[in-house]
Amino acid sequence: MHIIFVGAGNVAHHLAAAFEAAGHQLKQVFSRTLPTVAQWPFKTEFAPTTAIEQIKPDADLYVIAVADDAIPDVATRLKVNPQAIVVHTSGTVGINYLRHFERHGIFYPLQTFSRLVPVDITQVPFVLATNKPDVLQILQNIVATSFRARYYLLSEQQRQYLHLAAVFVNNFTNYLNIIANDILAEKQISFDLLKPLIQETAAKICRQTPLSAQTGPAKRGDRNTLQQHQILLQDYPPDFAQVYILLSKLIENKFGQ
Amino acid sequence: MHIIFVGAGNVAHHLAAAFEAAGHQLKQVFSRTLPTVAQWPFKTEFAPTTAIEQIKPDADLYVIAVADDAIPDVATRLKVNPQAIVVHTSGTVGINYLRHFERHGIFYPLQTFSRLVPVDITQVPFVLATNKPDVLQILQNIVATSFRARYYLLSEQQRQYLHLAAVFVNNFTNYLNIIANDILAEKQISFDLLKPLIQETAAKICRQTPLSAQTGPAKRGDRNTLQQHQILLQDYPPDFAQVYILLSKLIENKFGQ
Repeated sequence: MHIIFVGAGNVAHHLAAAFEAAGHQLKQVFSRTLPTVAQWPFKTEFAPTTAIEQIKPDADLYVIAVADDAIPDVATRLKVNPQAIVVHTSGTVGINYLRHFERHGIFYPLQTFSRLVPVDITQVPFVLATNKPDVLQILQNIVATSFRARYYLLSEQQRQYLHLAAVFVNNFTNYLNIIANDILAEKQISFDLLKPLIQETAAKICRQTPLSAQTGPAKRGDRNTLQQHQILLQDYPPDFAQVYILLSKLIENKFGQ
Repeated sequence: MHIIFVGAGNVAHHLAAAFEAAGHQLKQVFSRTLPTVAQWPFKTEFAPTTAIEQIKPDADLYVIAVADDAIPDVATRLKVNPQAIVVHTSGTVGINYLRHFERHGIFYPLQTFSRLVPVDITQVPFVLATNKPDVLQILQNIVATSFRARYYLLSEQQRQYLHLAAVFVNNFTNYLNIIANDILAEKQISFDLLKPLIQETAAKICRQTPLSAQTGPAKRGDRNTLQQHQILLQDYPPDFAQVYILLSKLIENKFGQ
């Protein structure tokens, strides 16, 4: 297939690498900013462009991988041939923003991408939705055959709940790590000490259910430790104690007899 | 060395396996409960026991690996020869509960252990503290030479802050996964979809700093998504929205311009 990327950020990079590795041809790439598009490392038939009007209309597949809030505008300005498929890669933006394209869909990779770290695309779950069965067939083939990854067909509502759940396990977990990092830095302790525990916490949740993996003073109802921790937290901004108290209370409620 | 385990839970199991693999001899094991001690899978010179008075006094090293709140009582009742080293494996319990032993210390493995899952002991950081330099030398040798793992010398206060930080990255992270699991279950979405993201979230934090790894609507100040998520959360117990609102607010404060 001939593919054009609308967007040149982390998601676009890793998807482009996967498409290229599978033998698809990258035809062009668009980014609104010159530095981003200038750093595009993949071979394309046509020069990268910062002008959306210069995007060629005759590719087979257009992958819109720009920031969520830029999708409506980009989708409005993108002109493609009627048989072209246009997808976006967002977990939250509605499929309806693409409805003026004859053949359109969702191509949402549920993963966090870092620019410089290669991704094993076979381990990325893709959430798909389309307006036409034959478009769905094509997207399924890309995921299953080109990427050798798994796809999931979710409703619009399910995809939004999935994105919400992803915020809890990714964004909020990361913030807990920021707090832990600050707790340690203040006491001259290296964050490295926690890294094996962080890895194993994730591995354990994937082997068993989160419910059965829960441990700790709040689960045990160990009031001494809970109280001692709140005393220790007095050395820090009140935010940390707020998080500690709320999450401990909810864990206690969940597991309390 | 001849080693006796006081306690036969997850920590004791994995440490005993590491000691045995390194060629040390397990002399005996104690547990207060018959089923636990009966399931002890390691060869010992003397029979496992549920009576603390039957613990032999002449081992080289006693590893107290019982629940935190049982340590004071167990330590009081344990009788050993003066040259024996007695350590406990807790992140929170003070070293002072061992002060009646001539030679004592802390031997705290910073990891979460699951009974049936083998542990790579070389990847477990050990926090050490002792009352005597020669005892420290012996514990360092065990970690560095027998286990080929890393040790860290922390003060009593540092160890407690480290344990507090571990609660954030392990217990609280796990609870966020419980919420995510509940969000998905209600909408008939498999938790499996989130597993690659959970793994990569942990991997990313270990490659870069938590601060630089932060992403998401709260960090971007994306009010539309934050508001939409709160509407989605109306389908769930108010706890979930409470967590969402607090953590989003703190992330916004941290990163807001």
